[in-house]
Amino acid sequence: MRPPLWIPAWLLLLHGCATARLPQAANARTDIRDCSTDPPYLPPTATDTTARVAALRGAMQALGAQAYVVPATDAHMSEYISARDARLGWLTGFTGSAGTAVVTQDKAALWTDSRYWTQAERQLDCNWELQRTTWIESIAMWILEAVPVGGNISLDPFLFSIDTWNSYRQALQGSGRILLPIETNLVDQVWGDQRPPAGSGEIYSLPEEFTGSSWQEKVARIRQEMEQHVRHPTAVLLSGLEETAWLFNLRGDDIPYNPVFYSYTLLTNTSISLFVGEQRLAAAARSSLRAACPGPLCVELREYGQAPEHLRQYVQGNVTVWLGTEYTTYGLYSLIPQEKLLEDSYSPVMLAKAVKNSREQDLLRAAHVRDAVAVIQYLLWLEKTVPQGEVDEFLGAQRMDALRQAQEHSRGPSFQSISASGLNAALAHYSPSNGSSRQLSVDEMYLADTGGQYLDGTTDITRTVHWGTPTPLQKEAYTRVLMGNIDLSRLIFPPNTAGRVIESFARRPLWNVGLNYGHGTGHGIGNFLSVHEWPVGFQSNNVPLTAGMFTSIEPGYYQDGEFGIRIEDIALVVEAQTEHQSGENPFLTFEVVSLVPYDRNLIDISLLSPEQVRYLNTYYESIRARVGPELQRQQLQEEYDWLQRSTEPFPLGRAAATAGTGTTGALALATLLSALLPGLQA
Amino acid sequence: MRPPLWIPAWLLLLHGCATARLPQAANARTDIRDCSTDPPYLPPTATDTTARVAALRGAMQALGAQAYVVPATDAHMSEYISARDARLGWLTGFTGSAGTAVVTQDKAALWTDSRYWTQAERQLDCNWELQRTTWIESIAMWILEAVPVGGNISLDPFLFSIDTWNSYRQALQGSGRILLPIETNLVDQVWGDQRPPAGSGEIYSLPEEFTGSSWQEKVARIRQEMEQHVRHPTAVLLSGLEETAWLFNLRGDDIPYNPVFYSYTLLTNTSISLFVGEQRLAAAARSSLRAACPGPLCVELREYGQAPEHLRQYVQGNVTVWLGTEYTTYGLYSLIPQEKLLEDSYSPVMLAKAVKNSREQDLLRAAHVRDAVAVIQYLLWLEKTVPQGEVDEFLGAQRMDALRQAQEHSRGPSFQSISASGLNAALAHYSPSNGSSRQLSVDEMYLADTGGQYLDGTTDITRTVHWGTPTPLQKEAYTRVLMGNIDLSRLIFPPNTAGRVIESFARRPLWNVGLNYGHGTGHGIGNFLSVHEWPVGFQSNNVPLTAGMFTSIEPGYYQDGEFGIRIEDIALVVEAQTEHQSGENPFLTFEVVSLVPYDRNLIDISLLSPEQVRYLNTYYESIRARVGPELQRQQLQEEYDWLQRSTEPFPLGRAAATAGTGTTGALALATLLSALLPGLQA
Repeated sequence: MRPPLWIPAWLLLLHGCATARLPQAANARTDIRDCSTDPPYLPPTATDTTARVAALRGAMQALGAQAYVVPATDAHMSEYISARDARLGWLTGFTGSAGTAVVTQDKAALWTDSRYWTQAERQLDCNWELQRTTWIESIAMWILEAVPVGGNISLDPFLFSIDTWNSYRQALQGSGRILLPIETNLVDQVWGDQRPPAGSGEIYSLPEEFTGSSWQEKVARIRQEMEQHVRHPTAVLLSGLEETAWLFNLRGDDIPYNPVFYSYTLLTNTSISLFVGEQRLAAAARSSLRAACPGPLCVELREYGQAPEHLRQYVQGNVTVWLGTEYTTYGLYSLIPQEKLLEDSYSPVMLAKAVKNSREQDLLRAAHVRDAVAVIQYLLWLEKTVPQGEVDEFLGAQRMDALRQAQEHSRGPSFQSISASGLNAALAHYSPSNGSSRQLSVDEMYLADTGGQYLDGTTDITRTVHWGTPTPLQKEAYTRVLMGNIDLSRLIFPPNTAGRVIESFARRPLWNVGLNYGHGTGHGIGNFLSVHEWPVGFQSNNVPLTAGMFTSIEPGYYQDGEFGIRIEDIALVVEAQTEHQSGENPFLTFEVVSLVPYDRNLIDISLLSPEQVRYLNTYYESIRARVGPELQRQQLQEEYDWLQRSTEPFPLGRAAATAGTGTTGALALATLLSALLPGLQA
Repeated sequence: MRPPLWIPAWLLLLHGCATARLPQAANARTDIRDCSTDPPYLPPTATDTTARVAALRGAMQALGAQAYVVPATDAHMSEYISARDARLGWLTGFTGSAGTAVVTQDKAALWTDSRYWTQAERQLDCNWELQRTTWIESIAMWILEAVPVGGNISLDPFLFSIDTWNSYRQALQGSGRILLPIETNLVDQVWGDQRPPAGSGEIYSLPEEFTGSSWQEKVARIRQEMEQHVRHPTAVLLSGLEETAWLFNLRGDDIPYNPVFYSYTLLTNTSISLFVGEQRLAAAARSSLRAACPGPLCVELREYGQAPEHLRQYVQGNVTVWLGTEYTTYGLYSLIPQEKLLEDSYSPVMLAKAVKNSREQDLLRAAHVRDAVAVIQYLLWLEKTVPQGEVDEFLGAQRMDALRQAQEHSRGPSFQSISASGLNAALAHYSPSNGSSRQLSVDEMYLADTGGQYLDGTTDITRTVHWGTPTPLQKEAYTRVLMGNIDLSRLIFPPNTAGRVIESFARRPLWNVGLNYGHGTGHGIGNFLSVHEWPVGFQSNNVPLTAGMFTSIEPGYYQDGEFGIRIEDIALVVEAQTEHQSGENPFLTFEVVSLVPYDRNLIDISLLSPEQVRYLNTYYESIRARVGPELQRQQLQEEYDWLQRSTEPFPLGRAAATAGTGTTGALALATLLSALLPGLQA
């Protein structure tokens, strides 16, 4: 799906300019607000927030808060949030997924990153300043100017992670302003009964055939880790929604695209408290959880809202609570006395979930075979339909979603499909909407980043295609992105290597000619859970790679205002076969489980080394071996023929023979040669 | 020099076993202590510490300290320390560079890493347990067992970095034990008048021809950074010895190998306090520092020991003190109220020092040309002398040092020379001593990791050679280490890339066959300053790479009990020429400034890709162009001829033609092919 959210500042700088352009704006004047005129000009996409902001200011005044900070996330640091938690969107009108608002008695500002600057100018009214950064230091500086010494800066502590809270505290330290937690959310208060209701959909047990182990086994394993830990924690607190869903093999639909439900869990050495309305549980789920009551495997069901109070009482005792600081809120954290805390970046549940057992691996592999069928159907359909000029981005996305939906065990898309043609694909997070969607054309590149939820797995794949004649630069850039994908996928590396120290292998073919991409290289993925699953991936806060982890590998290239390329596969970390062995454990490598061929029309095979070609051919063999039979089983003969054509082995001799003399296109300088590693191999 | 000290735990695991062997111990029983016998057996290398430990216990008792923690470092977190600061060595007998001792009333233990386990068993007497780890968590657990609840654990706060102090605090948190700072160092107290005196050598100004800019220019620049910083710090506190030496262009000899002197600096926006005995300054230095008195460029000279008290007084005012947390002690840090602190990992002086201006770059380049002459002399001398069986490791190191000493502007070695033959080279930090030194032989590999101090620069280079017939594994491993060195050296990468995300390029050729090395890949280096200069390098706490930085690039391979390989060069970060440009700033690459050819006898050219061969030939051309004339100037004709022979270009055709069929030696499996990227290029 869309690449990992975390983007280092220097990459944002590189990439930032891409999003300053309006994809299709014929006339920028009517498209975005203009607060310099009197009266200000507001486009029809803007929301009038005057009454809302005034109401919030009233609530702030009543509590003596000179500033109020509103984040974009929910109490579980979820990536997608429910409508009920879209406080930032309701207050400001801005619906982007990342942002922070601050309101004082006479000012109001929204901070967001470059992906969303144009969207913000379309959606904000003139009550709001737009701040084109997301650094907490920048927010704090604004606050320091707006709030006098002695003033209170208020936040809902249940909406800020420990780290974010501490960043605010540090930024305001010594300034004479007070960071004041207010547990009653002021936006909720003024939102009132207009606020969407809490999720009430049924929470159900995953059928046993789709689980890696029973919830009782998982609980026993986590308790064993607690016992073996040197600090002997008495409890693990789970506030990530995926943690509870995974632990109990439960699923729900409180959040779009992610089959989770609002919940907390306090798993102690003697008891289990699951904070979720009992009435929401399907009968079978409830009886499974209650089968061993009373006893250490009896799950006590408590109301969702009782979690803080229950925790407060629990920590009165002689206990130690283990939690993951990356996604636990400061509100919960601050309830636990420091000496009773065992802090890790991720809870043992998060870490256990990240390493799939062989059953879970097989499930995910199987989901990817059927997913490949749907994607292949889509690519073939595009190939036939686009030349007739009948497809736009939105229609394409709908078609893709429908093809997935038709596959066995499907539970809908795993995120909002990215279907982007031409210059729109240069916006890394573009999604089309009905009515403002670009036509697909044989004259442009097209990028589809889509994924599915299946009972046996979550998928996420990006393919970029061109049905006409790509420019030399398009072909070169595509080939280099592919070379990066291949080089990372075939890398052999020691056990416990952190993803961040190897992700540059995916960038090097681009770096060699002065190009790069402005996002992360991959993220973990769940078994019918979140498509961005912590803590696996290639970023600085990801844990070391271990056999059994799944991650996306998704380098890209974005040419501002012209085109965008991304090639994304899901890969499983597996043990490698090596001539030698250092240390006790074998080295690791990747097995790519996404099974859809790349666009031959965009590959300049002469740029590839023989090893890259050999790898590609081996990968194509595995696609044929695994997807071919499924296509036949589903009686998709035309797709089967397409697959055979698309996975024809590339001649190794060609890569060797044409090396350095062939279709290097836009390339000319000698410095480029350092990326050209083709040759003749016996 | 010896590779960077920081070693990730997983690498220690890989590498740890290497040091468990005794390099030459004919009989382990007499070589190391045996505390299980009665009386215990102690080798002659052990120190009787009974009286020292008893005296320390007395001092502890007087102050109510149940445990006392003694680190290996000094008050400046120096890598090398003076004899006066060798408290750990005096107390325990153990003279390794890394370790921590803890003493209670009835127990005493030393923690050190695998490099030093054997040495510790030789040097400790039976008062001491040896703990084979360096984790603070392990030290804390030992303390928790040894000290009852309510007990005091005492430390000298001026010998612990902020981070280390906080780690102890965190590890003991909630345990009921108290972390008690005692400013009077108890080891010093019991050491008494046996403790070596403080350094008293003259501190002198570096001649202007060897400086990049005047100290006044440097001070002005730092003050400008203070003004421009959003927090408007009023002072910068310098506690790293290199910081003060660099800022004032002063040098001294308080510490072996590093031309620095004990000092602190408090640079404020209106004044400059240099804490170093005035009488130690050479007259010219004193008059330079005092030329503009009184005034903002007047350097007030205060006694070294006055720094804490002066700082205490300074922070009474309305001030903000900027400091680097990586190397400032907790003792100084805790004097500054939190709201008056501006914390960064490194001070602006440390960062300014790391980026050499063009003058400094030229100076360092020039030093490397003369240094190459000395190394080439040494390699030729070895080639002629070793076959006669007349050289051992110690003699070799002496010869190398003498050859450097004869070069212009020499100021001695920049670290203790590592001269290691055969299995001794598998110990990454081995240095020979007179009398227990291994003979060099045509039947073994030999590793020399040496460096020099010159008025114009500091050098550090490692070459590994074999004068006879290397085994297939030796040749393969050497070639792969070289390939890693080449691949990192020729990498093109975006500006502001952190070294940690690219250092794997130096490992990949080894990884491909299941091999690795257990140390970091490089470290910054100074201009006649430290050979390990923070904060440049490839480790996680190094800053992003910027044009003008110098770093070593030093992959290796160590075969336990058999041989060791390291190939180390110093490289300058320079702008790269690329076909395209992303972002505002050009991409970067490295210019290798070490100018000594590699051992042709150990290179299996068929493993190299054409690009690697081409890079190597270009590098050899630059060696010829730069070192050749200097050899001629010094009338070293034999060395000149040797250089010509040793830098003959490698045939590109050979790499291409023999690819995959040649002398791959110990390699056979198909998986190895992924490292073989040779080919035929037009």
